[in-house]
Amino acid sequence: MPDSTQPVRNDAGIAHLLPLLAQRFGDRFSAGADIRRQHGHTTTWIENQPPDAVIFPTSTGDVADIVRLAAEHRVPIIPFGTGTSLEGHVNAPHGGISIDLSRMDNVLAIHAEDLDCVVQPGVTRKALNAHLRDTGLFFPIDPGADASLGGMAATRASGTNAVRYGTMRDRVMALEAVLADGRIIRTGTRARKSAAGYDLTRLLVGSEGTLGIITELTLRLDGIPEKMAAARAAFPNLKAACDTVIATLQYGLPIARIELMDPAALAAVNAYSGLTLPEQPSLLVEFHGSETSVAEQSQTFVEIARDNGSTAFEATTRAEDRNRLWQARHDAYWAMVASRPGWESHSTDVCVPISRLADIVTATTERAAAQGIHAPILGHAGDGNFHALLLLPPEDPETRARAKDMVTWMAETAVKMGGTATGEHGIGQGKQDGLVNEAGAGLEVMQAIKQTLDPLNILNPGKIFAPR
Amino acid sequence: MPDSTQPVRNDAGIAHLLPLLAQRFGDRFSAGADIRRQHGHTTTWIENQPPDAVIFPTSTGDVADIVRLAAEHRVPIIPFGTGTSLEGHVNAPHGGISIDLSRMDNVLAIHAEDLDCVVQPGVTRKALNAHLRDTGLFFPIDPGADASLGGMAATRASGTNAVRYGTMRDRVMALEAVLADGRIIRTGTRARKSAAGYDLTRLLVGSEGTLGIITELTLRLDGIPEKMAAARAAFPNLKAACDTVIATLQYGLPIARIELMDPAALAAVNAYSGLTLPEQPSLLVEFHGSETSVAEQSQTFVEIARDNGSTAFEATTRAEDRNRLWQARHDAYWAMVASRPGWESHSTDVCVPISRLADIVTATTERAAAQGIHAPILGHAGDGNFHALLLLPPEDPETRARAKDMVTWMAETAVKMGGTATGEHGIGQGKQDGLVNEAGAGLEVMQAIKQTLDPLNILNPGKIFAPR
Repeated sequence: MPDSTQPVRNDAGIAHLLPLLAQRFGDRFSAGADIRRQHGHTTTWIENQPPDAVIFPTSTGDVADIVRLAAEHRVPIIPFGTGTSLEGHVNAPHGGISIDLSRMDNVLAIHAEDLDCVVQPGVTRKALNAHLRDTGLFFPIDPGADASLGGMAATRASGTNAVRYGTMRDRVMALEAVLADGRIIRTGTRARKSAAGYDLTRLLVGSEGTLGIITELTLRLDGIPEKMAAARAAFPNLKAACDTVIATLQYGLPIARIELMDPAALAAVNAYSGLTLPEQPSLLVEFHGSETSVAEQSQTFVEIARDNGSTAFEATTRAEDRNRLWQARHDAYWAMVASRPGWESHSTDVCVPISRLADIVTATTERAAAQGIHAPILGHAGDGNFHALLLLPPEDPETRARAKDMVTWMAETAVKMGGTATGEHGIGQGKQDGLVNEAGAGLEVMQAIKQTLDPLNILNPGKIFAPR
Repeated sequence: MPDSTQPVRNDAGIAHLLPLLAQRFGDRFSAGADIRRQHGHTTTWIENQPPDAVIFPTSTGDVADIVRLAAEHRVPIIPFGTGTSLEGHVNAPHGGISIDLSRMDNVLAIHAEDLDCVVQPGVTRKALNAHLRDTGLFFPIDPGADASLGGMAATRASGTNAVRYGTMRDRVMALEAVLADGRIIRTGTRARKSAAGYDLTRLLVGSEGTLGIITELTLRLDGIPEKMAAARAAFPNLKAACDTVIATLQYGLPIARIELMDPAALAAVNAYSGLTLPEQPSLLVEFHGSETSVAEQSQTFVEIARDNGSTAFEATTRAEDRNRLWQARHDAYWAMVASRPGWESHSTDVCVPISRLADIVTATTERAAAQGIHAPILGHAGDGNFHALLLLPPEDPETRARAKDMVTWMAETAVKMGGTATGEHGIGQGKQDGLVNEAGAGLEVMQAIKQTLDPLNILNPGKIFAPR
């Protein structure tokens, strides 16, 4: 695994650059220890690597100015949204300037007739949905955290309803970005499709700040469904739950969410919230559509679940019952963390063809148990994507080393099954060996593109690729 | 407009290379005039520019061998699927070797549980659907022609049901491609989503053979819907028809197709097929789902259409009536060509935000009439995408020049409205000025990527970018 923790700092460049930036940005520049630490924050075991300073731009022109100055002094730039990414994306392993985009938080346009909107990168998904409240429209991507839309695009985020509404790959129609030399480009258009040239929008989405800094996004919206319904079904074993997912998709049921919880996750939720949910592999499902349609979808799902051996299920179209049904899923993360007080937690994700989901989840659970790791599992089952929350005894370097090996093993196993090292968390610093294994000769193509568009390697260096 | 018709041939390289290829490929190599002419075929007014030879590889290894030899001799390579592209994509403006992939036509795997399949690039969409017949699955992208899947990926094709099922951008999960130096890469995986590194799959989709030659594709399939229904509605004016499209999408109705036909297109169909359809702006719609669902969708659509002033509509769930309803759309191309016997025809497309569809269609119709061009219009209205079939008197260079200006004007107008120079036909040779106008500074990024991945400019030179 590449050691991104070994800094190669351009101390002289940084020393020259900081006073220039301080002068240019005044109180929107900070080199204070607290704010630096906060911007090098990672939510995992990856060591915090604070930047040398943080700047809060308020315009694309500000961002371009910072990049040009940084390029001149060969100092790294690390874009920062809300800091909720999970693989060390906002760390500064080579030092440099964190660009905190949270003050670029204007919704610039809503085109209700076209079901799209234009936003600055610091707008969070919840802020956008609050802004949309009176339009009858909503932005469906929900990765859990109230992340910034720029950060979600940069990491190709998705979440619970990607099975119906896609990922950021599908939702970003157009971008404005500042390149490594300060040039500003626009990619894509507000047309719903295009065959005009290379798909630079999709190249920037998921590039984790290594090819450009996203300064504006045009996003595709959806009409708020007339009605929502929900169902929960418990299964005798994991295979029966996964077979239900497969049959549901083959049937063409337009499910909005289909989430898997394993017995360990449900046990945590029961303990946390005083519930008595069956501690068996379970699916939580949500349906969006007309009243007739969601009732029919729910009915069909229950039949499919029953055919696959589910004996305990509950379905509802009433909003309060729906919220109660989904409460288990919403509480799951904190319930799982609370299930081992004081332990370290590390969330990792992989994604496989759905036919292999039961296999890899079973193998993961067994391996974790054998390694002394508690690993409850939550899955976006409709995508073949799941999260294992690895819970480890505190200050136990040996178990931690085994957990790191396990992350590597999960990524390799997913790739062997025809899947990917990460479905939605990204590569960052934590999954670089997984990408090397997965991409093969394609990695050279990625590196060639990086070299071409960022020859000085100043855009988020040490992410995606091993440091050079 | 860049003049792609001025060849810059490497005659010496070609003279050295042809005997080597003839020896290597035997009767799978041809330099015959007929076969060369057929492979330089374009369906438009763009001049035919035949290659110097055609090779029919049967494996990825064959393709890599051809590319390595061609690179060594600096001779262009032009990938060829079925030759149904519309912007000169298969022409050989600098001479070179056409690689006809039609013999790489094996369906390599069908993963019914995962709703995906793996195919060679020469498999056509109809052949794939015939192969899938007994699986309950289908591949939904329908650009009209029975194009090869490799060609459809290379040109980012879509068609009538993109509004529901997306375009090739959304349907290609993974690729194998031969790069300009003969290296073979694999991009993407069979997982339904990934956050692992740069999206090379989406970079190759729509690159028109200029970055690599696609030698294998993994495609996402859908379950065949239980039931289909159809409706046709005529409107007093174009705006009413387009407002119906907008309201239908805002409502979240999961329409499978929503096609616009203008009075000129309907008049052509009436004359061609002896029908008496109202010669007013009309929508043809198809619904996919359960019996209950399609009946409800159809009912809702009729209500929306009525609210927008439609007085003539017809809806059906019976297969034979559905086919009769859609016959008008299926016959439209030939009916329009037949409406002006002996005239030249040129199909062009642009795509705009849906709120601007009525504006640009009206402006196009008016401008065409003023220029002496007959231009019936068919639209994939749910995407804001439409085709004008420009019909011109034969051997009339002045009208042809005005028609070319009109194509440029349509592309520029679409971009001014927030749209794109082409929704699905691609850039090829015919829309290069449109791309320059649309992409702005992004064009330099595209060119930098092209330069990096194909430094000798041997992969389909003279396409997308002006010749260099």
